[in-house]
Amino acid sequence: MLGRLNHVAIAVPDLETARARWRDMLGATVSAVSDLPEHGVQVVFVELPNTKIELLGVLGEDSPIAGFLAKNPAGGIHHVCHEVADILEARDRLLAGGARILGDGKPKTGAHGKPVLFLHPKDFDGTLVELEEV
Amino acid sequence: MLGRLNHVAIAVPDLETARARWRDMLGATVSAVSDLPEHGVQVVFVELPNTKIELLGVLGEDSPIAGFLAKNPAGGIHHVCHEVADILEARDRLLAGGARILGDGKPKTGAHGKPVLFLHPKDFDGTLVELEEV
Repeated sequence: MLGRLNHVAIAVPDLETARARWRDMLGATVSAVSDLPEHGVQVVFVELPNTKIELLGVLGEDSPIAGFLAKNPAGGIHHVCHEVADILEARDRLLAGGARILGDGKPKTGAHGKPVLFLHPKDFDGTLVELEEV
Repeated sequence: MLGRLNHVAIAVPDLETARARWRDMLGATVSAVSDLPEHGVQVVFVELPNTKIELLGVLGEDSPIAGFLAKNPAGGIHHVCHEVADILEARDRLLAGGARILGDGKPKTGAHGKPVLFLHPKDFDGTLVELEEV
């Protein structure tokens, strides 16, 4: 069921600074900053040969990463996103196993325009797991 | 300079429970538990089509993840590991840019038998970054 690791998301307090560090210190290929106002974040993609890192900054007043950054002012790894072929099948298997889906359990349209769900970190060792249908 | 994402490491309080969750709830291909006494961890590899997750459990009294689990008893994402072609070149570029290398700055032999370095999380937005020469 579990497909590719689509991305690792890192919440950062200052997106331009983080972008410059990954580019200049690690020699990574980084995108420009994109605003995703409907998701409450700004994002920079760090392109790797096999997957990507997404550096996330706060955008607007209801950003989903604001709480995380309040608890972790220096930033930190926010979530991992895995691809699945059928998100409803994945959800039903998780629910049958006793896992909890965040929100109302219905897939939302994620930052890449595809259906996504987030699993409860308490069910996966403190790790926020996003599933994205591809 | 920055190559493939080699793995994402997740520190977990109970490795067998975590292994069963990734296998049964997420349908992932998981390895058996391996003891790495020289590294103070037990590990389970979650094989993904493009990279892997490493679930890490404490082994012995001087485990490098014991402090993390004391602060995060439920577990959490511990580090990301990126491949580099030349770890000394990578280190020198990082040092020239003002980044800090953990320990004495000399590569150690990592869990995969290859030279590794860890970068200071304060230089990368609270994210512990491992570099591995491949």
